[in-house]
Amino acid sequence: MSTEAYDRYLDCIAACNSCEVACLHCAASCLQEPDVKMMARCIALDMDCAQLCQVAVSLMAGASELAPAVCGVCAQACRACAEECGKHDQDHCQQCADACRRCAQACETMAA
Amino acid sequence: MSTEAYDRYLDCIAACNSCEVACLHCAASCLQEPDVKMMARCIALDMDCAQLCQVAVSLMAGASELAPAVCGVCAQACRACAEECGKHDQDHCQQCADACRRCAQACETMAA
Amino acid sequence: MSTEAYDRYLDCIAACNSCEVACLHCAASCLQEPDVKMMARCIALDMDCAQLCQVAVSLMAGASELAPAVCGVCAQACRACAEECGKHDQDHCQQCADACRRCAQACETMAA
Amino acid sequence: MSTEAYDRYLDCIAACNSCEVACLHCAASCLQEPDVKMMARCIALDMDCAQLCQVAVSLMAGASELAPAVCGVCAQACRACAEECGKHDQDHCQQCADACRRCAQACETMAA
Repeated sequence: MSTEAYDRYLDCIAACNSCEVACLHCAASCLQEPDVKMMARCIALDMDCAQLCQVAVSLMAGASELAPAVCGVCAQACRACAEECGKHDQDHCQQCADACRRCAQACETMAA
Repeated sequence: MSTEAYDRYLDCIAACNSCEVACLHCAASCLQEPDVKMMARCIALDMDCAQLCQVAVSLMAGASELAPAVCGVCAQACRACAEECGKHDQDHCQQCADACRRCAQACETMAA
Repeated sequence: MSTEAYDRYLDCIAACNSCEVACLHCAASCLQEPDVKMMARCIALDMDCAQLCQVAVSLMAGASELAPAVCGVCAQACRACAEECGKHDQDHCQQCADACRRCAQACETMAA
Repeated sequence: MSTEAYDRYLDCIAACNSCEVACLHCAASCLQEPDVKMMARCIALDMDCAQLCQVAVSLMAGASELAPAVCGVCAQACRACAEECGKHDQDHCQQCADACRRCAQACETMAA
């Protein structure tokens, strides 16, 4: 693998790893909220987003030719999750929304 | 989740699960071939394809709104892997190429 | 990879794939139940179990020397999930509990 | 989820994320070495280790009750991968061996 290809991905890998952890923490925390029903869409999008971050990391770390395409879908997942999490006042939701926005931006750059 | 959404995905989920297993078995078998170097691209594409099949299954089983987009990228991975595996005479490569072609077709239908 | 090692795993791989899909479908369906709070532990265990099934499949398909250890943890996840799902009357929970019990048994055989 | 449970995991999550990326980068780089055959076991263990790091992150980030058991298996994968990577002089192998040793130690603490 060319060292440049890998180096170019390092920031986006870091953003995806942070976003994945924020999403999984948010989902687990949402499941313990008094009103879980209100968080149902948040939990579902957290799960999607965490998985797409995970596969984006894998393909970028391996400098796969499909990494840009996966980053494109990951960015969509991040945008959807940021929008939903942004509606809830809980710390875990607000932190997740921030991580998703940063990751979306990093992935959009990679996908371009 | 609507039962129809889930039922609509069941064939594609089965194709992705078969393809993932064929890719992982092919990669492990390629690593034990006498000439591993000749199989290097096959191994790399097997790994990409297995991961995309895995995330496609997850999003389809959860009837995620992002499932069609992931199926679209998964189909690309399957087509690339089928083309490379198809060049090698080993049984594990030929079986993997077949599984990839079936999965590509199923994913293309879902992505449309 | 020895063909025997792979063949020996095929039943357990099939059980893990079925269990993963049942867990993800159950989790998504639980999130749409009128009383999501009652399903919170079910959703959490579904997610754990789905992930362990996924990694068990990957390591078995690659005939990894760590496959038995992963199958051991996967069996624990399946037993916990089956116990929780078994408490709920919904079809998706009952079907998930069945899939978890079959997978636990298959994984326990592999882990031994 | 209790905030303490999550905070307690943060160092181990970071070690697993670093180890996963190092393993995937090492595997992709090994596949491009002139003598791929010599790296075959390294590639196989990189793949196992990356997957176990990934699932360990997921279960820790969700503060799952199964996180310690998964960390235990992840530590085994890290030790095996560190031993093999440590035999090869390439930078990607040496860096991977370091990341695996750090991750093994962090996971052993969590598993205890």
